[in-house]
Amino acid sequence: MERWKLHTPEGVQDILEKDCNFKRQIEEQVGNVFQSYGYYEIQPPSFEFYDVFASESGLIKQETMFKFFDHQGRILVLRPDITTPIARILATKYQELSVPKRLCYIGNAFRYDEPYQGAKLREFTQAGLELIGVNTPEADAEVIAVTIHALLSTGLTDFQIEIGQISFFKGLMNQTGLDESDVEQMRLLIDHKDSLGIEELVQSYALEDQLKEVILSLPSLFGGIEVIDKIEKITINEQSLDALNNLRRVYEILVDYGLEKYISIDLGMVQSMHYYTGVIFKGFTHGLGFPICSGGRYDCLIKEFGKDLSAMGVAIGINRLMSALDRQQFDFALWKVDSVIYYMEAGRKRAFEIADALRKQGLIIQMYLGNAAYEQIVEYAKEKEIDGIITVFDKENIELNNLLTGEKVKTTFKQLISDRQSE
Amino acid sequence: MERWKLHTPEGVQDILEKDCNFKRQIEEQVGNVFQSYGYYEIQPPSFEFYDVFASESGLIKQETMFKFFDHQGRILVLRPDITTPIARILATKYQELSVPKRLCYIGNAFRYDEPYQGAKLREFTQAGLELIGVNTPEADAEVIAVTIHALLSTGLTDFQIEIGQISFFKGLMNQTGLDESDVEQMRLLIDHKDSLGIEELVQSYALEDQLKEVILSLPSLFGGIEVIDKIEKITINEQSLDALNNLRRVYEILVDYGLEKYISIDLGMVQSMHYYTGVIFKGFTHGLGFPICSGGRYDCLIKEFGKDLSAMGVAIGINRLMSALDRQQFDFALWKVDSVIYYMEAGRKRAFEIADALRKQGLIIQMYLGNAAYEQIVEYAKEKEIDGIITVFDKENIELNNLLTGEKVKTTFKQLISDRQSE
Repeated sequence: MERWKLHTPEGVQDILEKDCNFKRQIEEQVGNVFQSYGYYEIQPPSFEFYDVFASESGLIKQETMFKFFDHQGRILVLRPDITTPIARILATKYQELSVPKRLCYIGNAFRYDEPYQGAKLREFTQAGLELIGVNTPEADAEVIAVTIHALLSTGLTDFQIEIGQISFFKGLMNQTGLDESDVEQMRLLIDHKDSLGIEELVQSYALEDQLKEVILSLPSLFGGIEVIDKIEKITINEQSLDALNNLRRVYEILVDYGLEKYISIDLGMVQSMHYYTGVIFKGFTHGLGFPICSGGRYDCLIKEFGKDLSAMGVAIGINRLMSALDRQQFDFALWKVDSVIYYMEAGRKRAFEIADALRKQGLIIQMYLGNAAYEQIVEYAKEKEIDGIITVFDKENIELNNLLTGEKVKTTFKQLISDRQSE
Repeated sequence: MERWKLHTPEGVQDILEKDCNFKRQIEEQVGNVFQSYGYYEIQPPSFEFYDVFASESGLIKQETMFKFFDHQGRILVLRPDITTPIARILATKYQELSVPKRLCYIGNAFRYDEPYQGAKLREFTQAGLELIGVNTPEADAEVIAVTIHALLSTGLTDFQIEIGQISFFKGLMNQTGLDESDVEQMRLLIDHKDSLGIEELVQSYALEDQLKEVILSLPSLFGGIEVIDKIEKITINEQSLDALNNLRRVYEILVDYGLEKYISIDLGMVQSMHYYTGVIFKGFTHGLGFPICSGGRYDCLIKEFGKDLSAMGVAIGINRLMSALDRQQFDFALWKVDSVIYYMEAGRKRAFEIADALRKQGLIIQMYLGNAAYEQIVEYAKEKEIDGIITVFDKENIELNNLLTGEKVKTTFKQLISDRQSE
């Protein structure tokens, strides 16, 4: 046998019955919330030309992408995210694009480095939305509000959305006059909450005391709206002040949404500063070391494809959300077959009629395939946790046995039989 | 700009709002039918080790697969079908496999050569089912019956399922004593209904007259059950007779299912003789040059992964089914937003409450983002075909204007307002 025939590559999953059903349910719940806010789903292809993802401001590093060649030798990649293909679509596929445009997606993305439960998940499912063409705090707040409602719809309760504003950090860095590589170093130090490192780097520049103070406090600028109140008083450059003001307005709108209990402010959130242009956010839940969702304003991406459109979006990691629900001891039961129908050949046609009628009433009905003693059928039904057994001997003789609590089957079935007899 | 940045690779699609919604609806309908017969969905990964698909009896040729390397230099492939990964899963992932096992899937597969509307579709969606561990005519008929009900559930009416039996052909070939390469040539000639070619090849062997007659008639052995009646009389080898008998029984069961009007017999169906081991079938619809579904009994595949399990399955091509419905002038309308809510800042909180309450009642509600004159909102709603506009001036002053037929919104909304006032 070929060496790897029985194996799956690292980082991909066989999703079996119960998990698959759970996953589909979550996708449906999240999708329904997206739709209820007027977001339309689209599906980009699973792979694209590498050029689509080759970008200065891209979120995703080249080395994390799955690359291959087509028959003409061009480089293709399995999509590492779904927002970038949607940006391409927005710039190329709509004759007349009227804004705001609300789009969403549920699909798989592929990366070498996506952390998941202490390992890497190389194929993962993302559900996301993009609100295109409106750059206002209302738009920012809407995306965050839909995200929260989507998470709540799945039964997740124990989560926080941390909101930052990347322009606040950009403004501070512009004020310092640090060169690009030092800015990047600073960003990393802040991202890792390395206060000592930050202090060292700050000291090597001759900065005003107030500015120093703000930068040094970045890793701890976390909490409620009071974080903004406090830092606003000592922030002096206009860009950072505008960013704080923007963030405050987004927060106020979220208060009007009634969602403030899910919100924290984090001014030390500084990821992906080339990609994001305004509000950024991440959702965390207890005990899971990675965000279950992340998003933000990215007003420069679609321009790379030729149309200057502002955009705010989020991607929810469905696999991570499943883990989070699992940790929250979310009780999910796989659906059960309502009844198995066992028939003699003389009752076959009648058995199919009964099965059909019960299915039309929403029941899940399995045919028992083959001959067996009644005890075997009972054994089979018990093993599969099927509540009812219907035996069809011939056109006239039909028997119903309930093993457990199959009242639903019993009632529907009796109704069915009496309907037929009165015809 | 990078050369291919605005392009998509040949054979993949951007599925936009309307088509995506249509596709999701079809997937849901098909999935619901699968479930109603007790089939559980599973999801294998999108890519696997090449070894999984490297097989003597495989359906899929190596050159049609998308191959790439992982970071360790092992060959991966985008799954060219979903049945093979399920065979791997069946052999490796279940501690105790109790049969019959009913599994289904809805997902994308990838091939270079999949014909579609005069072109090739290299990424396509398949919905399929596998009935594992039972090799009986009942099992064969069930898979065909579920397929027919799945197609009917989408609104497709004008289709035929052609059923053959690959053992019938295998029996004839064993009887002739043709060598392997001539058998393959014969198979191709019959597949192309090349009567002249068949005659030429047959004449080069010294065959009994009856056998010659049967082989020559293969391309025309198409029609109702009378095809079996006719050929049974002149067929002499046991394997072929068994195959005919098996096919007859499957047909009879489908008659009991009440589905005979969708069924034709085609004894000249000879595709994939290494993969299939019994009944085979394909679904055709008027005006579409390719089958919308194909399936059959494959009792040897799972053995390749180490477990000897019989299996019967089908894959429905969702994209082809969409084309078929399109040709049938199937009337599909994209969902519409029920109402847009426009608010002044003093009414924001109230506007969100109203939106929330309406969404909880199943309505799709969009917020109008930003300031505008009322005429602009009307323009926006008209363009998006939104029936209702709700204007929230402040906590107390709310106005509802229906543009078109928005009785649903009106009623729900009035109910809501009066409920609140009586609180």
